[in-house]
Amino acid sequence: MADPSRYDFPAIQTTFPAPFVAHVEINRPKNYNSFSPDVFSSLARVFDRLSEDENVRCILLSGVGKHFSAGLDVKSASTSGPVSQTTEGEDIARRTWKIRRHMYGYQDGINAVERCEKPVIVCCHGVAYGAAIDLALAADIRYCSKDVRFSIKEVDVGLAADVGTLTRLPKIGVSYSWAKEIVYTARDFAAEEAERAGFVSKVFETKDGLIKAGFELANFIATKSPVAVQSSKALFDFSRDRTVQDGLLYTAAWNSPMVQSDDVKKAMMSGVRKTKSTFEKL
Amino acid sequence: MADPSRYDFPAIQTTFPAPFVAHVEINRPKNYNSFSPDVFSSLARVFDRLSEDENVRCILLSGVGKHFSAGLDVKSASTSGPVSQTTEGEDIARRTWKIRRHMYGYQDGINAVERCEKPVIVCCHGVAYGAAIDLALAADIRYCSKDVRFSIKEVDVGLAADVGTLTRLPKIGVSYSWAKEIVYTARDFAAEEAERAGFVSKVFETKDGLIKAGFELANFIATKSPVAVQSSKALFDFSRDRTVQDGLLYTAAWNSPMVQSDDVKKAMMSGVRKTKSTFEKL
Amino acid sequence: MADPSRYDFPAIQTTFPAPFVAHVEINRPKNYNSFSPDVFSSLARVFDRLSEDENVRCILLSGVGKHFSAGLDVKSASTSGPVSQTTEGEDIARRTWKIRRHMYGYQDGINAVERCEKPVIVCCHGVAYGAAIDLALAADIRYCSKDVRFSIKEVDVGLAADVGTLTRLPKIGVSYSWAKEIVYTARDFAAEEAERAGFVSKVFETKDGLIKAGFELANFIATKSPVAVQSSKALFDFSRDRTVQDGLLYTAAWNSPMVQSDDVKKAMMSGVRKTKSTFEKL
Amino acid sequence: MADPSRYDFPAIQTTFPAPFVAHVEINRPKNYNSFSPDVFSSLARVFDRLSEDENVRCILLSGVGKHFSAGLDVKSASTSGPVSQTTEGEDIARRTWKIRRHMYGYQDGINAVERCEKPVIVCCHGVAYGAAIDLALAADIRYCSKDVRFSIKEVDVGLAADVGTLTRLPKIGVSYSWAKEIVYTARDFAAEEAERAGFVSKVFETKDGLIKAGFELANFIATKSPVAVQSSKALFDFSRDRTVQDGLLYTAAWNSPMVQSDDVKKAMMSGVRKTKSTFEKL
Amino acid sequence: MADPSRYDFPAIQTTFPAPFVAHVEINRPKNYNSFSPDVFSSLARVFDRLSEDENVRCILLSGVGKHFSAGLDVKSASTSGPVSQTTEGEDIARRTWKIRRHMYGYQDGINAVERCEKPVIVCCHGVAYGAAIDLALAADIRYCSKDVRFSIKEVDVGLAADVGTLTRLPKIGVSYSWAKEIVYTARDFAAEEAERAGFVSKVFETKDGLIKAGFELANFIATKSPVAVQSSKALFDFSRDRTVQDGLLYTAAWNSPMVQSDDVKKAMMSGVRKTKSTFEKL
Amino acid sequence: MADPSRYDFPAIQTTFPAPFVAHVEINRPKNYNSFSPDVFSSLARVFDRLSEDENVRCILLSGVGKHFSAGLDVKSASTSGPVSQTTEGEDIARRTWKIRRHMYGYQDGINAVERCEKPVIVCCHGVAYGAAIDLALAADIRYCSKDVRFSIKEVDVGLAADVGTLTRLPKIGVSYSWAKEIVYTARDFAAEEAERAGFVSKVFETKDGLIKAGFELANFIATKSPVAVQSSKALFDFSRDRTVQDGLLYTAAWNSPMVQSDDVKKAMMSGVRKTKSTFEKL
Repeated sequence: MADPSRYDFPAIQTTFPAPFVAHVEINRPKNYNSFSPDVFSSLARVFDRLSEDENVRCILLSGVGKHFSAGLDVKSASTSGPVSQTTEGEDIARRTWKIRRHMYGYQDGINAVERCEKPVIVCCHGVAYGAAIDLALAADIRYCSKDVRFSIKEVDVGLAADVGTLTRLPKIGVSYSWAKEIVYTARDFAAEEAERAGFVSKVFETKDGLIKAGFELANFIATKSPVAVQSSKALFDFSRDRTVQDGLLYTAAWNSPMVQSDDVKKAMMSGVRKTKSTFEKL
Repeated sequence: MADPSRYDFPAIQTTFPAPFVAHVEINRPKNYNSFSPDVFSSLARVFDRLSEDENVRCILLSGVGKHFSAGLDVKSASTSGPVSQTTEGEDIARRTWKIRRHMYGYQDGINAVERCEKPVIVCCHGVAYGAAIDLALAADIRYCSKDVRFSIKEVDVGLAADVGTLTRLPKIGVSYSWAKEIVYTARDFAAEEAERAGFVSKVFETKDGLIKAGFELANFIATKSPVAVQSSKALFDFSRDRTVQDGLLYTAAWNSPMVQSDDVKKAMMSGVRKTKSTFEKL
Repeated sequence: MADPSRYDFPAIQTTFPAPFVAHVEINRPKNYNSFSPDVFSSLARVFDRLSEDENVRCILLSGVGKHFSAGLDVKSASTSGPVSQTTEGEDIARRTWKIRRHMYGYQDGINAVERCEKPVIVCCHGVAYGAAIDLALAADIRYCSKDVRFSIKEVDVGLAADVGTLTRLPKIGVSYSWAKEIVYTARDFAAEEAERAGFVSKVFETKDGLIKAGFELANFIATKSPVAVQSSKALFDFSRDRTVQDGLLYTAAWNSPMVQSDDVKKAMMSGVRKTKSTFEKL
Repeated sequence: MADPSRYDFPAIQTTFPAPFVAHVEINRPKNYNSFSPDVFSSLARVFDRLSEDENVRCILLSGVGKHFSAGLDVKSASTSGPVSQTTEGEDIARRTWKIRRHMYGYQDGINAVERCEKPVIVCCHGVAYGAAIDLALAADIRYCSKDVRFSIKEVDVGLAADVGTLTRLPKIGVSYSWAKEIVYTARDFAAEEAERAGFVSKVFETKDGLIKAGFELANFIATKSPVAVQSSKALFDFSRDRTVQDGLLYTAAWNSPMVQSDDVKKAMMSGVRKTKSTFEKL
Repeated sequence: MADPSRYDFPAIQTTFPAPFVAHVEINRPKNYNSFSPDVFSSLARVFDRLSEDENVRCILLSGVGKHFSAGLDVKSASTSGPVSQTTEGEDIARRTWKIRRHMYGYQDGINAVERCEKPVIVCCHGVAYGAAIDLALAADIRYCSKDVRFSIKEVDVGLAADVGTLTRLPKIGVSYSWAKEIVYTARDFAAEEAERAGFVSKVFETKDGLIKAGFELANFIATKSPVAVQSSKALFDFSRDRTVQDGLLYTAAWNSPMVQSDDVKKAMMSGVRKTKSTFEKL
Repeated sequence: MADPSRYDFPAIQTTFPAPFVAHVEINRPKNYNSFSPDVFSSLARVFDRLSEDENVRCILLSGVGKHFSAGLDVKSASTSGPVSQTTEGEDIARRTWKIRRHMYGYQDGINAVERCEKPVIVCCHGVAYGAAIDLALAADIRYCSKDVRFSIKEVDVGLAADVGTLTRLPKIGVSYSWAKEIVYTARDFAAEEAERAGFVSKVFETKDGLIKAGFELANFIATKSPVAVQSSKALFDFSRDRTVQDGLLYTAAWNSPMVQSDDVKKAMMSGVRKTKSTFEKL
């Protein structure tokens, strides 16, 4: 079992409800789970630890309470951080520089989900606005409940999304025409539209049903060879951004030691014998 | 209001039916709005001007009359231009060179729509063949009416599409298997198939309904912060073609001055006060 | 007519049922058409020859008998090849090196389908597991029959797919969330789900109906100008992996001599006269 | 002979001193040939015309008078243009946006030299500072006279070079360590150091000797097949920025019609017969 | 002045000998400054802090004592770390996985020098072997003393260099033929050869002279606008790896706010008035 | 020892003068070792075999007799091959298509040298023109004798070089200005200029001295760990064409199994004991 004490960070709650499965929840329900600076930095720390934790093979990501997340905590953003804290007469270049560093920090919180070696299933429910979408797009598998209201809210606060939505949305297989419409209008879209567009791959009646199904999937993935599953994630994301030829070269370099794994023998054997394999930690 | 006299080019009609909204129409209805050389060069000039016109925030693109466009004007192509005007004994290299320059010119007309800083909503109706598809694919949002007949016609005239269809079609989120089928066969496909495939994101009963809905969308987008909307377009298209990491680096460089915009304060305020913001020109 | 004697390779049967149309079938029905080393190497040789065979314009790919293919022949993989043939005390680096070379060989068999100049229509039926998916993803157009059971099986044998699935799946326009789910779980999916996801573009009631429709499509494509069709394939696949700008530059370089083809005149003429063109071999 | 009246633009003087050779000179000697806005826009127009002028095969680029150019005209930059013309209370995002558009305009003037189809030989003499370096780096061949004083001056005016120096300098084969030193320090470097570093490929005693040698080279290049020379430039610059594999694919697409040129036969014949060929215009 | 207490890490000594200048020294002189795990991790932490330290504008990197560094500490590598600590019967895939994670850690120590926002001048003296070369290649400017003995030692210990030499060496402007020779043979090369090849840009008689000249350069760079210098570094390294077009787009996005800096006015003024500017911290 | 009978191909002579060292010679001395179609196809076959031959670790490439090679055999090119064999009225598109396929074949012969897993030292002597340069640029290390006359001859026969010179020359660390000059003028350059430019890395008095030194280098490289040397080549060439980040990712994937090689232990031991290691075949 993973050691919960290593995951004690503000604004994010991490539990280990089943063997090899972690549950990460945004934990600011009184604030609609909005993203304070803590959320970004805790996300980075939690997912970087999960990435190397041999007791974890699959991660469920959701929000404590009714809502997944209302996105950036506008109140906290307007009272702290380089965007709000302007000094009279401050040099534009220096201020911009600080904001850019600040953005890298926020991007890093989101990127941690994508660079995490383990698959991440995100379960969206209630409100999922703005930064919540950036976060969901960095996950591997997107599920939602019927009550969800998605919105790529940034345009409505005078911003272009800057922590990942605009970079990842053209690469998840949705209609580019639809993607641009929902970004330019900042309009809400519901579960059914999200599923039809391919934004989420399954919809569930209730949050409870969603979380239950999420755990079933997570538990199932956790029974698989972690060498196989985690290699698949790494090769998928590398290939998505590069030519097929580069994807194949990287695959051969990566996989040539991996296929020597004991997991292959075990998995083949259990296929033949119709038994279940238990795989070593990774 | 934009100054209409700056947009007086042959074969393309540009009007400004609402504040911050431009309507660009291919204007050769007697010729099925087919693409004469004028269409390509006027497109480039019109969209390059719209791109920098502070009185424009969103553009609707359609055809005068029943049809969007029948594609390349075969008659004009066969009587002018380097492909048709062959000189006895002309050197193949030189002729090919001239044709390549000519293609760059045609590509430039289409590219102007993509490089235009403002979102472009294309409304397809009636016949939308060949070059009409290249054009539609360079727009941001694709809508159509029920009467539309699409066809990537080029194979039927002995050609591979060369002004953008083959480069953009693999990147708009449609099934690659379907895309190749419609290209190799040059067969017609109708509104419903186009919507199911994700080629268009909405279908309307009539051309009138289509144009009306297009304007509603355009007007709505025009109420948003132009800093936010136009930054979104720029970051979307850059990211589509590059790695996620490069997309994020570019986003941070681009957006760090943009988030200092007055639009952010205005937009947040009006979100709180439930009022409407008016944004400065851009 | 193509010369069948040039296509006599083990494990792959190649026939020429109609003018300009080839039928390639995996021919190990007693072994569920599983991929022995012969299958990979024959695929490379057959498709490289078809690529330059002027009597071939379109290729149908399916399996002899009930099943398309059960994927890698685990029995043969476990008794031959560098993965299974381990020598006591063999150096890990050297063994890994041999396996990598071996993978390049397998990748080459699959890549031959993509680099084949002629369009390939794959018809999936019965079982289509593991390497069968890698193969199907390298084809241009994917059709299937209702009885098909797809599975990206590799994770269930302790492996990440290494001959193309993970590199091509993010680029065929399916939901990335769905793609990752079916890879991480190695679960079966049926015809309807495959069609809804955009993995295949058409489903047919029976294998017979599938093959019949496949031939109709192949025959139809074979009536088109091969200059136009094969240029389209080349430009499509180059563009998929690169920026729009590079796609357009390559298109102009490629297409500027091609538009001087006699096929253009013939095709235009027959369009006007409503006759059928016959195109020279390529 | 090229038609001089088509090249009548402010701040740039274009003459045609020999068959197929153009001489472009920055023509603001009273201002040390510094770059006013006119220089940038005239450069773009002149080189875009030369690019398609069949009477031109090679271009010499230098400055009228003693100096090549002192770089950006600081006086004009500080009294016009979006950087200097600040309005009280102007929105930072909007001002930044205008500056970025402005930079694209400046970059376009420099890029025109690189995208010009014909080889450009730049002859640097006297002062060659700041934007003069950006310009020289966009040329094909760099020569200088002994009196030259180069400096990548931007850091000394509080700027990073933004019209090409930082993008092209890492790609011209000089020591990256040296390149960074001269950029970070903004120090002068003389002809000898420039030659040793590979920044210029030849040094001449005087400006006169430099220009004479430049014309000899230009005249010599102008006797060669323009198909061969201009194809070489195109393939060189495409390849510099891409993988070897993409370079080779593009080369094959580009060159397969070009090798059918009459120039090949002529050139081979004259090689055999030791005569001089005359090539058709391009 | 920077706060030295924030830079107290094992194996690396960081001092601040002059305003805005930091001196980072590898501090294991009894072990020839060889790279223990501490060296890698301290490098990452020190340079990441320097990167954001507003009291630092330029960094000198050298070794305490006679030698720069003998490279990887083979003794420590052979008693700790995943390569040496093999468990009987350990799964090859898992062991390889741990080694790969370990390499990322080592690469990160070296990358920190390149991603550091401030220019880094490396001064090589005495022995500079193996990892010392990887480190030197990540710096901006390379100087050395006459006594230096360089060697890309990895091949002599049965390895390919894996923390940066093979990735950066083809991009610093040295002859690729020479680079491959020194890598394949692992032979020593001295100061003069290094300078002739462009590997270092200056050679000094003694270590003292080297360090003195290094500080003069560092002090000089530290007098320049940090907005200008640090932007130059960022744009240089981004551009080195990408197309000229992408470099220019990124430059315009990055630089359009930067040119609004007060530094520009100050620098221009002091240029006119021949005075020295003092720039705000960054 | 390698088996000479596997290397019996026309126009290329392959011998094995020392353990683990192969000598490949262009063997058409009566024709100045010019490149007939045989030379290209034999190069591909010979180097592809050497690449996987465990008895070979380093390859010397030179010409039989006085000259390295005069480049393309113009006589044979003008009597066979698709360029010369024109049929009256042949379709331009089809002829171009055949020429492109033909070029891919020629490129393949040259590429085989670069994709060969083992280092290739090319020794240039006498005449080294046209295709000889393409070939030399695909090798790892370039040496020459004083009598050599290099020329990138293609422009003088009305062609742009199309089998690699224009793609590889911008990437070997020579001055881009110099590179363009020698390409556009097709002028000769001698040993000293080639060395100064970094085109070759060493010059020898005579052909005999050159070959002798080449073998000394080859023998020396052949004593090193083949895992280390061949991994270095692979990682070098991958990195040259890609971002530093991609280079590092690929390096970590490739090298994490390689560092587990017995060669590391052997090499370290022999370093300590000052003995010579003998490495297993690869």
